[in-house]
Formats: sequence, structure tokens, C-alpha cells
Amino acid sequence: MPRETAAQAVSDIFEHAPWIGAQAVARGPSPTVAALHDAMMTTLRGAPAEQQIAFIRGHPELGSKVKRVDITTASQAEQGSLGLDRLSDAEFAHFQKINAAYRERFGIPFIICVRRHTRDSILRQFERRLRNTPEQEREAAIQEIGLITRLRLSAKIDGPGKPKTEGRLSTHVLDTTTGRPAAKVPIALYEVGASARGLLMETITNVDGRTDAPLMSETPLRIGAYQLEFDIAGHFNGKARMFDRIPIRFSIAEAEAHYHVPLLVTPWSYTTYRGS
Amino acid sequence: MPRETAAQAVSDIFEHAPWIGAQAVARGPSPTVAALHDAMMTTLRGAPAEQQIAFIRGHPELGSKVKRVDITTASQAEQGSLGLDRLSDAEFAHFQKINAAYRERFGIPFIICVRRHTRDSILRQFERRLRNTPEQEREAAIQEIGLITRLRLSAKIDGPGKPKTEGRLSTHVLDTTTGRPAAKVPIALYEVGASARGLLMETITNVDGRTDAPLMSETPLRIGAYQLEFDIAGHFNGKARMFDRIPIRFSIAEAEAHYHVPLLVTPWSYTTYRGS
Amino acid sequence: MPRETAAQAVSDIFEHAPWIGAQAVARGPSPTVAALHDAMMTTLRGAPAEQQIAFIRGHPELGSKVKRVDITTASQAEQGSLGLDRLSDAEFAHFQKINAAYRERFGIPFIICVRRHTRDSILRQFERRLRNTPEQEREAAIQEIGLITRLRLSAKIDGPGKPKTEGRLSTHVLDTTTGRPAAKVPIALYEVGASARGLLMETITNVDGRTDAPLMSETPLRIGAYQLEFDIAGHFNGKARMFDRIPIRFSIAEAEAHYHVPLLVTPWSYTTYRGS
Amino acid sequence: MPRETAAQAVSDIFEHAPWIGAQAVARGPSPTVAALHDAMMTTLRGAPAEQQIAFIRGHPELGSKVKRVDITTASQAEQGSLGLDRLSDAEFAHFQKINAAYRERFGIPFIICVRRHTRDSILRQFERRLRNTPEQEREAAIQEIGLITRLRLSAKIDGPGKPKTEGRLSTHVLDTTTGRPAAKVPIALYEVGASARGLLMETITNVDGRTDAPLMSETPLRIGAYQLEFDIAGHFNGKARMFDRIPIRFSIAEAEAHYHVPLLVTPWSYTTYRGS
Repeated sequence: MPRETAAQAVSDIFEHAPWIGAQAVARGPSPTVAALHDAMMTTLRGAPAEQQIAFIRGHPELGSKVKRVDITTASQAEQGSLGLDRLSDAEFAHFQKINAAYRERFGIPFIICVRRHTRDSILRQFERRLRNTPEQEREAAIQEIGLITRLRLSAKIDGPGKPKTEGRLSTHVLDTTTGRPAAKVPIALYEVGASARGLLMETITNVDGRTDAPLMSETPLRIGAYQLEFDIAGHFNGKARMFDRIPIRFSIAEAEAHYHVPLLVTPWSYTTYRGS
Repeated sequence: MPRETAAQAVSDIFEHAPWIGAQAVARGPSPTVAALHDAMMTTLRGAPAEQQIAFIRGHPELGSKVKRVDITTASQAEQGSLGLDRLSDAEFAHFQKINAAYRERFGIPFIICVRRHTRDSILRQFERRLRNTPEQEREAAIQEIGLITRLRLSAKIDGPGKPKTEGRLSTHVLDTTTGRPAAKVPIALYEVGASARGLLMETITNVDGRTDAPLMSETPLRIGAYQLEFDIAGHFNGKARMFDRIPIRFSIAEAEAHYHVPLLVTPWSYTTYRGS
Repeated sequence: MPRETAAQAVSDIFEHAPWIGAQAVARGPSPTVAALHDAMMTTLRGAPAEQQIAFIRGHPELGSKVKRVDITTASQAEQGSLGLDRLSDAEFAHFQKINAAYRERFGIPFIICVRRHTRDSILRQFERRLRNTPEQEREAAIQEIGLITRLRLSAKIDGPGKPKTEGRLSTHVLDTTTGRPAAKVPIALYEVGASARGLLMETITNVDGRTDAPLMSETPLRIGAYQLEFDIAGHFNGKARMFDRIPIRFSIAEAEAHYHVPLLVTPWSYTTYRGS
Repeated sequence: MPRETAAQAVSDIFEHAPWIGAQAVARGPSPTVAALHDAMMTTLRGAPAEQQIAFIRGHPELGSKVKRVDITTASQAEQGSLGLDRLSDAEFAHFQKINAAYRERFGIPFIICVRRHTRDSILRQFERRLRNTPEQEREAAIQEIGLITRLRLSAKIDGPGKPKTEGRLSTHVLDTTTGRPAAKVPIALYEVGASARGLLMETITNVDGRTDAPLMSETPLRIGAYQLEFDIAGHFNGKARMFDRIPIRFSIAEAEAHYHVPLLVTPWSYTTYRGS
């Protein structure tokens, strides 16, 4: 790719800061997409502190403009995907309050890669990061910008060596009374927590006791709390049993990891674990 | 116990039917409380069908008089314990509707030993028994009267050989990363279902990973659906983990049985089963 | 494939009975290898009983000629693979005794697809089949001939739709204290039983907690009893623990199936199951 | 108990050293048996190093006199219980060799409370303790003498507050296909290892899936390696299954502890763990 085309392609990866892409490209061609992103982050980290802060300040505040009519920037579209544009009045007030506390303390907007978090997780991060020193928080903001731009770059440029930005959630249901997979078991996946989205998807196990497609994949997993529910009543239909619908509540802490959550089940017992 | 005293003692065990106790006592002394109850049930089953039906009709209708000011009969007090006197208008209307359908079909009030069921379970029994033939249903009513009077007799008369009327729910938390009981784990027990009572009790594990007292005991267990929640986050505090609060949803089908529901747990796996 | 070439190719699949292959080929081309084998079995089953018995009698007796110098037939080579040519004197005597009892009872040599059984399993089959009626036993012999010839055909002819003749044994070791695969765990596989071969293979888990190659594969699994041993001491080195080397003794009953035998392990607990 | 009687009673608890009991008793009455033993150990530890060493040297060497005709001392009788008097010539030679190496290095006999160890465990302790410094080893010898005399005192004197000298091994078999205990399951317990005693006992589960008596109890458990075998074939008789006889190999590291080793089992899976 000619240097000029490359520079133009990456000019809007970093918010209002085409200089980051331009300087990174000027250093020479990158053999992989991941290396190109590394070069841009090196450029950002090499900039003077004042320029970094000015760049950080150029980001919109989280949830602050969701009532505006025009959603024009990439950040706004991404925030929309989480439902931050559907906040209740109380939630909106809470967001504004911690946003204000944050700006008061750090003088910059709170930046987080929203596509890697549930709303509850964002709130927890907000509260946790309010305890940072200003230096720690500048570093935290830059790290989040790294995660945001890595996703943007990955979506925009195709090429070898793309950075790993996708997580995966999968399951497997085994009936240990027969040593066979349990087929046709309905499964529901919920996001849980104070401001959670609720039911995310429903599916059913195939003849191998797995689902035809992963429960979540192709994007980062949102760090947060979830509940799988396995409707096992039909599988053990007609048998005395203790379990009809088995809930498994679990946390996802790594957005780009594979979480395999199997269920070994009889009418009177079950086991779950993080598999691989 | 002199025969006359005995007859008086048992005169109100069967609703408006002192003749049952009287005839049973007249047959001679019973060596155990259970035998005395058996003798009364034999008396009832030996009566002509018309007398049985008249006796059944003497029972109050379930939930039908809960708005009355005076709660005078034993049946009413027992129904009160389940919260049938705190029915919402919609629930009250639903109860009245199926009560009417039942009376239309069978010509007798719906009788169930409410102390052995959750409200959801009573509704399911109602719906199930509406499919009975009149003969099957008369037998079902007599069986329920047997369960009701067994409880009343057990509460009233002390003596050897009392019938088993108590169930028990217990748990045990073992940390299989250390092979040791998990102490100080908060546990909550919920009744679940459409019209469930919600949180029933909260407790905490002792040094043996058990609770000082059973989660439920001393009375029949209410047949129905429950959820135990184990707040394991504190036990694995500071360790990477997948589970913070582990829900175990299970059914109780035998009111007088012991349900032992242990949890074998690590930060990344758990097993539950019906123990003994 | 021209009919004549085909006929020649299959002429020695059935012991001393080229007519079976020839007649099957004469019926017309088979779309798959499995269909060709089916056609040959149909030919055999369609033959008169006397011809079937004569054909069965053409088979060598199991273990009877293992002291001979020349091993010329396919049956003999296959028997050799199981170590039937390395029988102790006592074992040889026992084999001869039951062989004689069998011939006395049925008038045919005992036929079994030895590549699908351990020696212990062959003895158990011998004893079980001695209780058959002559008709049941003729059918059993033909079924075993079907299994033997299916393997021969599969080894000789390449083409679409080969019958499934391969089994597989695999494992997976997960450390549920970390939710991660256990790597570098030494594993040994033994055949167990009175006349078992002992250690079959040793291997080690890779970073995914699996073995680079299946523990057994590419041929039928031998029906029989096995023991896996997982040397977990090194993995939990330095930790208090209850298990150093975990034995899992299990039976294989289906020669062409996949047996997945995982181990979920902590220093104080483990779970194994037939997975998929 | 009068002081004189007490002194006489404890005079032979410490080998050839009645002064230890006498001085301990002279300090005044002990409220519990454990306190009396503590007083004797305090007396020993308070003695000059030369006197301690002379006392330690008064002990017989382990396994050195097992060919003698007369077994007169308590130490010899205790060693006999482990089978040290039934050593093979090779084992006897090995014991003598490490005994000699030990005496060469430390100038004292190797002392270990044999009733708390299997033969394999004694050998491992021997090898481990050969790496001690002389000071560490003197302390190790005194600790072992404490364990030996605690057992002797406990056997000789009855009274309140006896020290805990007993361990316990128990099990429980639950069939998780039915949520019920598995009754009549034969269980065998083996000691395993290079010079192990083999089968220790056989028993069977009762209706509660437990054994009427603990598998081991009333004495210290011998630190070492064991194997439980559960003959589950009969329980799942007639059902397809993967397990006939389930071996659980485990280590006991604490002689006075309770090891509860349950088995949760289906025809196709099982779980074991250290329970409580």
C-alpha cells in the first residue's frame, strides 16, 4: 500500500488526531496490522504530555451527549451499541454525576472501550478509576484508546497479522447417565446486573451437545456478569429429577478470551467448569 | 389414655366429623400415633361413598373465605400460613375461577394439604387434578385429608411412633482447591415461581462448611421450586475466578424427605448433587 | 473399476471363498466400499446353510496353529498381532481346551474378529458364545466374518464411502483451580486383565491439556479393560495434595467408537466422564 | 492420683528414662493427659544436650534387631506391627545400609513413630532426614519421641483431655443417576507402594451408601499411599457402562486427621474429593 493511501486510511482511527496515523505511516511500512497499530501507539506515547492530554480531551464524554439528535462520531456510534443512548433518566443523572466527579478530578473525559464492557462493568471501572492518581489515569486512558483504536483499525484494514480482538463463549451439554451428548436442550444467555440488557440470545444444542454457532463471538466479549440457563426438563422428561432449568451465573473478565462453559448433568447432579 | 379422653382428643382432627375419631378409638387402643391415624383413615375409607362425599363437602374451599374477618377453623389458619390470605386481586380471581371449575366438575371443594405445597405447586396440582375422573378425585381428596389430619394429629398428640411429617433441607460447601470446608459463605434460599414468596431465609456456613441449623426443617417441606444462592466471592477474594454468586435452582417433590444439596467449588468450577 | 479387476481384488477377502466376492461383483458396481461389503455379506447370507457351514469350517481355529512355522493366511497374521502366538503353555492349553469344547458343541471353528478384542475379551466371548444355540452361533460366526472382512476390504480397496472401522481414545486434563489446561502431565495407558498386555503407550499433555495424537486410533479399539494413569504430582508440585498418580480404569465396549476420557482435577478432587 | 503412683505409672513411657516421668510428675498434678505429656516433653527439652543425646542413643535401632528371638521392648513390639519383623533379606539389607549411613552421619539411632507411617513412608522419611543438619535431626528425633510417647501414654492412662492420636478414613457412595446412596457396593482398601502391605480390608456399603464402620480408625493413620477400589459393576448391573471397578489412589499425610473420600458415580462418570 503506498504510504499516502495508508496515511489516509488510518487518518480517522484516532479521534481528531490524524497526526498519529500520519507519523506512524511515515516511519515505514508495517508488516502486519498489529504492527501498524503498535506503531501508532508508539507515536502517541512518544508525544509530549501536553499533546497527549489535549488529544485525550478531544474525546467526547461518555453518555453525555446521548440526547443529542445527531450521532456523528465513531465513539458515539459505539456507545450506542451498548444502549448508552437508552439510559433511563435516573441512569442518565448518575452517569452525569460521576462524569462530573471524574472531570473535576482529572480534567479529561472518561475514556473506556465500551465495546469490551457491559454497562455495569463500565460503572465499576468508573468507580475504580476515580481512585487513580492523575498519572495512572492518563495511562489508563491511553490504554483504553489503544483498545478502541485497535478495534477500529481491525475493522477498517484487512491484512496479515490482525490483532486478536475477538472473544468467544461456547458450551457443551453431556448427559453422564448415558455418556452421550444431550441434544435439543434449549439454552438462554442473559446479561445480569443492575443495568443489564437481560436476554441476549436463545439457542438449542445439536446432536453433539454443542451449539451450531458459539453463544457469543466475532467481537470482544463484554466484560461483565452473565447467566446461562439450560432447560434440561425436556431431556429428562418422565424421570424423577431435581433440576428443570439450570442457571449458571458467571463473570467474563477477559474480552478477547475463549470461555467454554460445559454442563455435565444427570437428573440429580451437575458440574460446570471453565473448559478449553 | 382412657378411651373417652382419647375420643375427645381426636374429635376435631377430621373437619366437622368427630365420628371418625370416635369410631377409630372405639376399635381399641392404638400402640402408636401412626397406628391411631391409620385407624381413623380406615374408618373413613370404610364409610359409605355418600358419607365420604358429605364429609368432603364439609371442608372449606381453598382461598375462598380469606377476606372474611374471622378465621376460625384449622383449615383457614393453615391456609393463612401460605399467604393465601394475602392474595392479590388477580390471584384471588384466578383461584376463584379454578375453584369454580373444580366444583362444577366434581361437586366437592378442592382439598389439598397446603402445608406441603408452595402456591405454584397448589396451582399445578389444581390443574393436574382437574383431569381426574370423579372416582380418582374422591380418592385424591381422601389422600390429602389423610395428609392434613396426620399433621394435625401429630401436633396434638404426643406419644411413641409419631408419623414422619417433617422434611429437611441442608447444604455443605467444600472448597476442593484446599480439600477443606468453606466457612463463612453467605447463603440465601428463595422460593421461585410465578407466585413465589421470594427470599425465605439467609444464613452462613460454619467452620465445617455446613449451616448451624438446617435451611428448612421441623415441618413438611413445601413441594415446589427453590433457589439456593452461595455468595462465594468473599471466600475466593483476591483470586481470579469465574463465579461470584452461585445459584442452584431445584425442585422439591417429597415433602417429608431430606434434601441435602452440597456445593463442591473452586474459582473455576462447581458441582452440586442430591446427597444424603 | 472393470468388473473383472474388481472381482480379482476382492477374491481373497473371504477365506477360501472367492465365490462370495465374484457373485457380489456380478450384481453390479457398488457406489461405495461399504456398499460393496454389504453386497458380499448379502451374498453370504443368501447362500444355503450347508454352504455357509462349509465356508465357516474353512477358517483356521483360533490359536490352534500358532506353533506352526509358517504363518501364511491373513487370519494367522491378524491373530499374531494380538500376541496369540506368544501364549504361555498354560494359556495355550486353556485355549485348546475351550476350542475343543466349542468344536464339540458346534462343529465349526470359533471365529472372532481378533483385531477388535483384547485376549481377555476373546476369552469372555468364547465363554459367552458357548451358551448359544447352534443357530445363534452360526449367526454370530457370520457377524464376526462380516467384521473381519470389512477390515480386510477397507485395507485393500481405497474409494469413497469406506466403512467406519476405526475407533479413537483421547483425553484432556483441566486444572479447575485455575480454569486452565494442565500441560506436561505424563500419561500412561495400560491394558488390564488376567492376560493383558500391560503398558500400551506413554505420552504427555500439550499446552491445551490434550495429547498431540490420540492415545489409540486408526484401527478398531480392542474391546476390553484399560487403565489410564495421570501423573499429576509434578503439576501440583509444592502444593499439599491427596493425589499423585490418578488411575482411571475403564472398559471399551464399542471398537469403532470415540472414547473421550477427560480429567478435571484439583489437588483434592477429580472428575472423569465419557465426553464427546 | 497420688504423686508416687503417677510417677510409677509413667516411668516406662520414655525408653530407659524414668527420670522424665518422675520430674514431670514432681512439678505437680496435670489436669489432663495431654498436659501430663506436655510436662514430660518440657522436661526432656529442658535437659542438657548431652543428656538428650544419651537418652536418644538409648533407643533401639529401627529394624536392627528383628531377627532376635525375644521381642521385649515396647519399641520392638510397635515395629513388629508394621511388619518390620517380616523384612525380606533385600529389605533387611537396605534398612541396615541406611541405618548405618544415618548413624555414621548423626551418631544416634534413627527414631520414628512407626505406628504413624507405612514402610514406604518410613523409607522416604529416612532419606529426607539424612539431609538434615545434626541440630535439625536432634529436634526431629525429639519430635518423633513426643509422638511415640504420646501414643504410649494415651494407651496407658485414662483420664480427661486425652491427646488426639486417632485418625479416620471413611467413604460414601452416591449414585447420581438416582440421587440415592448406592448400597451393597463392595469396597477394598489397599496400601500401595514398593514395600506395601497390599489388601488391608474389605467391606460393603450399607443402605446409606456408607460403611458400618470407618475403613480405618482408632489408631493413627499410617502416613503413606493407599488405593480404594469400588466394585460398582453389580450396582449398575445390566446397564451399559464404562466403569466396573473404580480405583482411587490417594495419599494420607496427616496421621491424626479425618479423610473422607466419597464417590459420586454414574455408569459413565465419577467424582471423588476430600470431604469432611
